[in-house]
Amino acid sequence: MKIGILGGGQLGRMLIQEALKYDDEFYTLDPAADAPCHNISHFTQGNFNDFETVLDFGKDKDVVTIEIEHVNAEALEELESQGIKVVPNAAIIKTIQQKILQKEFYKAHDIPSPDFEIMDGSSDEIKIDFPFVQKLNTGGYDGKGVQIIRSAEDLKNLWTQDSVLENLVDIDKELSVIVAINENGETKTFPVTEMVADPKLNLLDFNICPVHLSEDVDQQIKSITDKFLAAVNSPGLFAIELFLDKEGKVWVNETAPRLHNSGHQSQEGNANSQFEQMYRVVKNLPLADTDAFTFSGMLNLVGAEGFSGKVVYEGMEDVLKLPKTYVHLYGKTQTKPGRKMGHVNVLADSKEELMEKLVKVKAMVRVIAE
Amino acid sequence: MKIGILGGGQLGRMLIQEALKYDDEFYTLDPAADAPCHNISHFTQGNFNDFETVLDFGKDKDVVTIEIEHVNAEALEELESQGIKVVPNAAIIKTIQQKILQKEFYKAHDIPSPDFEIMDGSSDEIKIDFPFVQKLNTGGYDGKGVQIIRSAEDLKNLWTQDSVLENLVDIDKELSVIVAINENGETKTFPVTEMVADPKLNLLDFNICPVHLSEDVDQQIKSITDKFLAAVNSPGLFAIELFLDKEGKVWVNETAPRLHNSGHQSQEGNANSQFEQMYRVVKNLPLADTDAFTFSGMLNLVGAEGFSGKVVYEGMEDVLKLPKTYVHLYGKTQTKPGRKMGHVNVLADSKEELMEKLVKVKAMVRVIAE
Repeated sequence: MKIGILGGGQLGRMLIQEALKYDDEFYTLDPAADAPCHNISHFTQGNFNDFETVLDFGKDKDVVTIEIEHVNAEALEELESQGIKVVPNAAIIKTIQQKILQKEFYKAHDIPSPDFEIMDGSSDEIKIDFPFVQKLNTGGYDGKGVQIIRSAEDLKNLWTQDSVLENLVDIDKELSVIVAINENGETKTFPVTEMVADPKLNLLDFNICPVHLSEDVDQQIKSITDKFLAAVNSPGLFAIELFLDKEGKVWVNETAPRLHNSGHQSQEGNANSQFEQMYRVVKNLPLADTDAFTFSGMLNLVGAEGFSGKVVYEGMEDVLKLPKTYVHLYGKTQTKPGRKMGHVNVLADSKEELMEKLVKVKAMVRVIAE
Repeated sequence: MKIGILGGGQLGRMLIQEALKYDDEFYTLDPAADAPCHNISHFTQGNFNDFETVLDFGKDKDVVTIEIEHVNAEALEELESQGIKVVPNAAIIKTIQQKILQKEFYKAHDIPSPDFEIMDGSSDEIKIDFPFVQKLNTGGYDGKGVQIIRSAEDLKNLWTQDSVLENLVDIDKELSVIVAINENGETKTFPVTEMVADPKLNLLDFNICPVHLSEDVDQQIKSITDKFLAAVNSPGLFAIELFLDKEGKVWVNETAPRLHNSGHQSQEGNANSQFEQMYRVVKNLPLADTDAFTFSGMLNLVGAEGFSGKVVYEGMEDVLKLPKTYVHLYGKTQTKPGRKMGHVNVLADSKEELMEKLVKVKAMVRVIAE
């Protein structure tokens, strides 16, 4: 089957890597000539935000999917109308692309997400209480396009673009759950993972699985994933980012309609990875089991401050000596501060051992330049 | 790093798949335009038995390796003399390529292998007792080039080419052990696997791990791998095929200087796979841990008799529904009787459960043509 992916980054690369277990032909579209997928797929250099480029790329594929959500959804709609299968479908990509529509989707389907108001120029009155979170309607990614407004004083920093303003959750834990639904309506949910964020870069730092949660919290999450999967009306793999607040209530922060950084530990930690699951969704195959066999965790390898240029992974040989430790690099030759260059997955027999190993690995390796 | 592989078959494909976790560029050489590696590496169509072709392919690589041993070893010697790293080195490839040299290697290093005589036209007297095994000096592969001569009557079938004639072992079990040694001399051994052969196709059928062996047998195997690794004088990953005879003695049947079908269950069954290990050998990195976490087994997906043409994996969707079951196809579009098209790995909590699952999967799937 000819599978086209909009985006040629690491998520696409790891999807293709997993799918080399099968017999398909992968095509990728990315603006960067040296995108991580460029040398392992039929590669087209081009802009996935451009209508004609996406249309042209997709028209001879059996199925078109995405590894980034900021793509031209109108072109995907056009491809659908021409009979090309698009996974997830253009409608849900459009909804998730725009924070305003995404929030309205949660509201319409009774999925708990922080109360919000819309800032779209139709009124200049802000009624929401401080502190609140401003999320740009479009263009946010990897923590960009999100800011906290704590006081009237902060209002001078308010972005002027269309936004969602939502209540700031008093966060106890940041959780993530990856769900999948195929065209036949079969669904599978990965075990919940917990994220520990780097406050400076606002990128995931550690990500661990499984997470010990109360029965009540588990039940709230199950209710959320059930409602989401019933409402989504599209095959796809989705990462639902959750906040558990200090009163024990679970809120949906946001959803990504694609493979997600918070699911990387599934590569060695679960019976099957999010990449295997995505492949099966794309081909409408029976979904894979997602059991966690053991404790697993992931840490991102991010370009260190002060280094730009040809990447060097300082300390990597020592990491490779550690048992149950798995290095995943993304085929990026150039590092810069904050760039996601790879990740390391770690397995352990207990949460304590896991955290110890993650901290140890993090201290061992540094992403610098020649 | 520019890594060149002689051969572009499934072993190369799975090596490259694993190595997509890192940042190297892979180049493959294979006579078949649609070889399994053709679309996931820089591919050169050409004959790896041809001196000039191999020399030309290898001259601009940082390291050249093999995924098949029937390559032009003289060209590899020439590359070495030009300063190109060859893994495993040309000398050991030459030794293993030729059954006569291979047997003499075992003898010289006190590695137990069935007694033999050489048939090379220098004498027409055959002194070995019936039954014996004739192994062609060169060109044997996947069970081809090997026959049993049981009686004087059978002598009319004796091939006339240079051969090894060796005592037939009264086999209790066929075992395999994969060993690795890097340039620094670090070594690792995978847990022993047991093979159950298909007597008709003489291909591996099931392959299971771990194998319960007596302490004495474990000790004999350890002595063999120790002697082999001490003698081999080359970095490399090697599959040592063993016979355990009915009196409890272990014999080396033969060695492959490469990735091997008998190690495929390591993909999901071990802490790291033979492919990860081979990558580390090629790059002279610290070797990976090889622990078996659970019971694992592999069955080959082989083209069914009577079917040639565009492959169809009948029953595959049902296999994909099974938990802890992993399908690996080789990207081959055309099947023919006996062709290795893929394999299925299975994990289980006990040997009984493992065998049950393998038998079940084998009955579910058939490799036929459209």
